Amino acid sequence: MAKSKYEYVKQFERDDSLIPNTWLVIRIDGRGFHKFSERHQFEKPNDRRALDLMNKCAETVMTEIHDIILAYGQSDEYSFVLKKECDLYCRREAKILSTIVSLFTSNYVFLWKSYFADKELQYPPSFDGRIVQYPSDNNLRDYLSWRQADCHINNLYNTCFWALVHSGKTETEAENILRVM
Amino acid sequence: MAKSKYEYVKQFERDDSLIPNTWLVIRIDGRGFHKFSERHQFEKPNDRRALDLMNKCAETVMTEIHDIILAYGQSDEYSFVLKKECDLYCRREAKILSTIVSLFTSNYVFLWKSYFADKELQYPPSFDGRIVQYPSDNNLRDYLSWRQADCHINNLYNTCFWALVHSGKTETEAENILRVM
Amino acid sequence: MAKSKYEYVKQFERDDSLIPNTWLVIRIDGRGFHKFSERHQFEKPNDRRALDLMNKCAETVMTEIHDIILAYGQSDEYSFVLKKECDLYCRREAKILSTIVSLFTSNYVFLWKSYFADKELQYPPSFDGRIVQYPSDNNLRDYLSWRQADCHINNLYNTCFWALVHSGKTETEAENILRVM
Amino acid sequence: MAKSKYEYVKQFERDDSLIPNTWLVIRIDGRGFHKFSERHQFEKPNDRRALDLMNKCAETVMTEIHDIILAYGQSDEYSFVLKKECDLYCRREAKILSTIVSLFTSNYVFLWKSYFADKELQYPPSFDGRIVQYPSDNNLRDYLSWRQADCHINNLYNTCFWALVHSGKTETEAENILRVM
Repeated sequence: MAKSKYEYVKQFERDDSLIPNTWLVIRIDGRGFHKFSERHQFEKPNDRRALDLMNKCAETVMTEIHDIILAYGQSDEYSFVLKKECDLYCRREAKILSTIVSLFTSNYVFLWKSYFADKELQYPPSFDGRIVQYPSDNNLRDYLSWRQADCHINNLYNTCFWALVHSGKTETEAENILRVM
Repeated sequence: MAKSKYEYVKQFERDDSLIPNTWLVIRIDGRGFHKFSERHQFEKPNDRRALDLMNKCAETVMTEIHDIILAYGQSDEYSFVLKKECDLYCRREAKILSTIVSLFTSNYVFLWKSYFADKELQYPPSFDGRIVQYPSDNNLRDYLSWRQADCHINNLYNTCFWALVHSGKTETEAENILRVM
Repeated sequence: MAKSKYEYVKQFERDDSLIPNTWLVIRIDGRGFHKFSERHQFEKPNDRRALDLMNKCAETVMTEIHDIILAYGQSDEYSFVLKKECDLYCRREAKILSTIVSLFTSNYVFLWKSYFADKELQYPPSFDGRIVQYPSDNNLRDYLSWRQADCHINNLYNTCFWALVHSGKTETEAENILRVM
Repeated sequence: MAKSKYEYVKQFERDDSLIPNTWLVIRIDGRGFHKFSERHQFEKPNDRRALDLMNKCAETVMTEIHDIILAYGQSDEYSFVLKKECDLYCRREAKILSTIVSLFTSNYVFLWKSYFADKELQYPPSFDGRIVQYPSDNNLRDYLSWRQADCHINNLYNTCFWALVHSGKTETEAENILRVM
């Protein structure tokens, strides 16, 4: 049959297996979530329902992909940690990455109405992602510390910024006050 | 600030840029769509609305990602072709792959109710994906011929199989009849 | 100048940096050394001078590349271990590999006459090589155990085989005797 | 036997096959050849014997590796072009690269005395290398044009520089004169 004549194109697929015995971290990020949060009038600095939705999506992903042993999120990003000995999809990078990003996205849209009963989803949001390999436990811990420090810094700034805005300052004034500090 | 102390973990991210001047093909596949189509009672061999939904998702992805110049789908899979000179996200593999898979998934769930007004989505579906580089126009054409031949073979089989089943044969009988041929 | 017009071809070079904080093992192997050892009438099962030459080459490579902390060889192969924190050539794979293979080869030819004063080098020998990343100390130890076990097995066989041959058996007879055991 | 217990370490070797149907260019470069040419008192701007030796090494590499269809060199560098359909070592990058670099190096040391009968090789020289994939014939042509333009520029400069030096200028004076132009 004609199919076999073309099947050689499969040879262009590369083996993208990740190195055994490394921690695998998949971090996903909301694409254009600044605009998305404005269009859906998320509360500032933090929208309880939006964060709960993110957490629920992460929980569902973890329920489906058992090799994930830890997840950490903030704002519109989430990190998933696969254990060192994990052999999910023979550690093929594209397969692992695309599956987790797709599952998370799918749940976000599917569960939206459970968290925002009074707010119609205006358009479909999306996420991108990447996988990083960490050889040692210390590297993994430092990765998580890095995301945690980032979360803290952003929260500190946003809390102050919106407190100033809610107290009557313009956004520009709030920015200028915080720049000085 | 403590953040900088941990920022070294970014060095573990690898540069995954794809080779310039090659056709990039992103193929996405439904995960567990055999079960998904049963749970949502898709018509056999082909469910018009399910195919229309797939096509609409592909159309939306193409509207958002302008570098895609061609898309071809069948059943629960879709291939997207990025032109050779495309510099989308500096040709970073994970970024391109995760974005396209996520956009497609998001639209699938978001648009479901427009195509299946009378059928509630039972659970969030997901897709996985991969990127393959093709150096020459002939390679790309053969890739598309490969998917087209695959589509034809599957359709031929499914059309006969379901015609036999609809005519009163059991699924096992239908399988046995087709195996002989 | 015309040069800049063509310089875009540099963009096709990929970043092949290896993951930080992993042990790097470079293993090199003699190409066609069965024939090479016959042409130079190496003593069997082990040729003292040939092994001394291999060891001297490894020593010279280690003197030149300070990041190598350990080397282990047998027969016509040698493994070099770069420490985890090594940043040699920014951990670029091709640069590290090609440099070590070239240095070893160069020394082999250069030092030949110091070890085989009475035997002219008949033709230039060559080696190929690869780099493997090992995340943990245990992985590295097991790698070395693997090469050591391989060395032991080969030595055991060769010692017996050549003892039989030197005692008057043909090579085929020796093979058959050892196959039974 | 104990060997099998450790053999899992082979799983850390990655598949580094290059993409089919691309031109493969291996470029090798002399390491520290500025010092090497001084120590061996190469004639300036070009040493006929040193260039002849480089060319002979390239010729020998081409005789051994039949998939090479073209080679181009200047000074202490050489580029080897493998044809698109080449399946040498299943297109494994490390194997191809290390073999060619090693063969070239080995010949350089082995053939030295045929070109420099009156000059002892002071120490073993070495080369590093890389492989680049070029998808189209135009890309390959531009790569060769790039190296050719580079050769021309260097030659032009070196010819003028050494003409000035041979005419009685100091090296610093020659540099300053050429900087102005």
